[in-house]
Amino acid sequence: MNEIKVEPYIPDEDYDNPAMVVDFYEFTMANCLFLHGFKNTTLVFDMFFRKNPDNQGYSISAGQRKLTRFLLDYHFNEQDIHWLRTKGMSEEFCEYLRTYKWKGDMYALPEGTVCYPHVQMVRIECDLVGAILIETYLLQTMNFHSLIATKATRVTGLNTHTPRNVMEFGTRRAQGESAGNDGAYAAVLGGCIGTANCLAEMKFGAEVKAVGTVAHSFIEFFPTEFDAFKAFADTYPDSVSLLLDTYNIMESGLPNLIKLDDYLIEKYPNDPNRRVKSARIDSGDLARGSKRLRKALDAAGKPYIKLVASNGLDEKKIANMELYEHAHFDSYGVGENLITSASDPVFGGVYKLVAVKKPDGSYTPKMKCSDSASKAIIPGKKMPWRLYDENGQAQCDLIAMDGEVIEAGKPVTMVNLDSDAIERTITFIPTAVRPLLVPHILGGELAIELPSIAEKKAYIAKQLTEETWESELRLECPHKHYVNMTPAVAECRSRMYAELHGGKV
Amino acid sequence: MNEIKVEPYIPDEDYDNPAMVVDFYEFTMANCLFLHGFKNTTLVFDMFFRKNPDNQGYSISAGQRKLTRFLLDYHFNEQDIHWLRTKGMSEEFCEYLRTYKWKGDMYALPEGTVCYPHVQMVRIECDLVGAILIETYLLQTMNFHSLIATKATRVTGLNTHTPRNVMEFGTRRAQGESAGNDGAYAAVLGGCIGTANCLAEMKFGAEVKAVGTVAHSFIEFFPTEFDAFKAFADTYPDSVSLLLDTYNIMESGLPNLIKLDDYLIEKYPNDPNRRVKSARIDSGDLARGSKRLRKALDAAGKPYIKLVASNGLDEKKIANMELYEHAHFDSYGVGENLITSASDPVFGGVYKLVAVKKPDGSYTPKMKCSDSASKAIIPGKKMPWRLYDENGQAQCDLIAMDGEVIEAGKPVTMVNLDSDAIERTITFIPTAVRPLLVPHILGGELAIELPSIAEKKAYIAKQLTEETWESELRLECPHKHYVNMTPAVAECRSRMYAELHGGKV
Repeated sequence: MNEIKVEPYIPDEDYDNPAMVVDFYEFTMANCLFLHGFKNTTLVFDMFFRKNPDNQGYSISAGQRKLTRFLLDYHFNEQDIHWLRTKGMSEEFCEYLRTYKWKGDMYALPEGTVCYPHVQMVRIECDLVGAILIETYLLQTMNFHSLIATKATRVTGLNTHTPRNVMEFGTRRAQGESAGNDGAYAAVLGGCIGTANCLAEMKFGAEVKAVGTVAHSFIEFFPTEFDAFKAFADTYPDSVSLLLDTYNIMESGLPNLIKLDDYLIEKYPNDPNRRVKSARIDSGDLARGSKRLRKALDAAGKPYIKLVASNGLDEKKIANMELYEHAHFDSYGVGENLITSASDPVFGGVYKLVAVKKPDGSYTPKMKCSDSASKAIIPGKKMPWRLYDENGQAQCDLIAMDGEVIEAGKPVTMVNLDSDAIERTITFIPTAVRPLLVPHILGGELAIELPSIAEKKAYIAKQLTEETWESELRLECPHKHYVNMTPAVAECRSRMYAELHGGKV
Repeated sequence: MNEIKVEPYIPDEDYDNPAMVVDFYEFTMANCLFLHGFKNTTLVFDMFFRKNPDNQGYSISAGQRKLTRFLLDYHFNEQDIHWLRTKGMSEEFCEYLRTYKWKGDMYALPEGTVCYPHVQMVRIECDLVGAILIETYLLQTMNFHSLIATKATRVTGLNTHTPRNVMEFGTRRAQGESAGNDGAYAAVLGGCIGTANCLAEMKFGAEVKAVGTVAHSFIEFFPTEFDAFKAFADTYPDSVSLLLDTYNIMESGLPNLIKLDDYLIEKYPNDPNRRVKSARIDSGDLARGSKRLRKALDAAGKPYIKLVASNGLDEKKIANMELYEHAHFDSYGVGENLITSASDPVFGGVYKLVAVKKPDGSYTPKMKCSDSASKAIIPGKKMPWRLYDENGQAQCDLIAMDGEVIEAGKPVTMVNLDSDAIERTITFIPTAVRPLLVPHILGGELAIELPSIAEKKAYIAKQLTEETWESELRLECPHKHYVNMTPAVAECRSRMYAELHGGKV
């Protein structure tokens, strides 16, 4: 490495280039391998995860759209090159990065695919530098989107076949600005009907609709609660939704709401759209509140006023209110517990080298064994398939070597990945099959028409409603989705583990 | 409101303006109040929180630097105005926002201040629109920075007087790009010695140093583990830090490391800096690994090779290894559990209207009562003070009305905020006092010289080491810091609660 004297780099808090969302070790490694002459070597990496959040039976894969955009626009700026020189990277490597374009292949599950541990979400094949340096951004993006999309399917009740109207209200507790924006997007994929976050709608469009009415401060601002209600209704007569718990729900909020609706009836006798649309409560005993309010509003001849709940809600609190207390809310605002997936805030996706391309075009499988057998990976350039039973439901996933063909209607022999399985080798005749990874980028060029948000939302709902075993959706001790290997994959993995580490896997 | 026909807004995923990180209800409210003629009314809002993360006895307040920068640069772009028109905001309001400058006052705890529930972190006084529309960004920023800075003080052992070297390695599991960047900054404030994240160093400078060596994929890439070690050492002879657990720590990683160090001794006999500096393990039984490795390296005459651990660590796992197993690592890489504060990933700061300025310059206190007494707030424009005992330790915080003066060396009568306290009214003679909120922005202009990262880091360490009661730092059932009100504040709160809600608080 040539030592080069460089001007000090001046930090700039406003600077941004997502290509620099890199763990420094990636630069250290890439520079070293570059200097050792491997820059044209093609590597294959798998991104996968080891555990569904909250010990549930499935996850939703998301982030592909953002990752695709990132790779298509991948580049380094002069500022990056300057900084890298101050960090001891070689001049040759810096020069190479200066004009570097990402020319690899990205295969991935279509965004919104129901997915399972150990089955790849993304497969990257690229020259050495472009394969190594994207690790952190790829993981950050896929992990966070998948985390929130998965949680959202549970909060919106898609997994329990109890769909409900949920608005994503967590921006203020999101872990930073991009979490608030991308989290709103992922929450909508997972079934939410809107978000509080204006910037999210500006970015992603009307599918990620920004909604909201008033906070307590608005009510407090006026001399009386009714003055506040009336001011709101005078400004927005077509969308009157108010908050009842600023002072006292039953003694103050409710009578003022009824009075306001009567005022609207008198003011707009012939315009039934100009009525109170909904009332929200954000404190106290929500379940009891819903019943008392519903009864009082119905008794006042106002069954059309809908009820909205918020205040630290999550899927368990909502389900308990609905199931055991027969509370009825027409919609829910869910904040911090959704936008951070607070019950399990980490989606542990990893990105592992699985093969190196040889000059003859074939691949040398690679394997990290590690001292935890559960962290030992599945070597080789592979393609996962999903095998469907006669009901159109996913029976299992099957990890095959790339190029192996799995055919519907024919017996398929498979080795269960779970070393605890009693029958490790099984045969199954699938009614239908599909290869799970779809090319998103080929040779650096976009290779897919990315679906709309509405299409992805429908895709998720369809899979959970029609294609996933009930037993995998169970909340406690769900069935562990069968993940199998073809004999070729299993043989390669066993052989390499024995060679590299000693022992069986 | 005039209905205006506007061109459809075209969403743009790359668009960003932090001023649009707004819950839509803030626009709805502000537009309504604007149309009702209140645009020149000055409001006072408090930002505070109700509970320390993880039921600990303290929190660290952070985010002030970023919030200050945000308010100084606060503006709306044409794109924002266009979008707001499509969302039904009035033409007059949109016109007002087009040239709006933020001219308010921001008082805040200095960044890094140890803080407690119910005591304000930030006090905003501003015209109506500028007070209302900043809520979401203010909360998001303060909440996330405070969350991570607080967690970091525990992971680095500052709270247990067992300081240790911790590197923030969580970028790949951070909840989005800004979480990775700001999280690295906050982790360093809380005591970390570096981060994996390159972009964080580019933004915040060398105090947020990007560090890292190699991943398993680097080792796998080479025909043998030793080939990989040697390639690394040939490129970076001055900073040889390697990873031992790619294949088998004791059977392969360790002997290859010793062989490499011998190779360096032979190659650079007279350069003691060119030796193996450290070895990291990332799987298996870390505590046992540390002992076996330490013993073997010492026996091989290499006591200078330091040991680094990573793999799902957090403050509890580290403390348990150190305390009960006498494991010794020289440093730790801590990932997802720090960058997401996984054990409690939500910092629940809120932003509440507390006063409205009257034309005569005095303030009308405002109060949200709500149906949960614990959510009832402390009305009025206030200043919190910290009262110190004769040992220089913080005895209590005292929330006073703005303008009340608390003097050292004189008896101070206070009312405990905790309604469970046996003695609600107490008198104490503080040895020293300080008003906690410091002006950061006055009339829209910067009013503080923001301290450096090193200064803030030292400030946090000093408070936890010297100024905080041991009993508040206790991990289980810590002493609840005394938070008191002056009689004037207590009287105002009781009177308003009785008037507005009925009952006592």
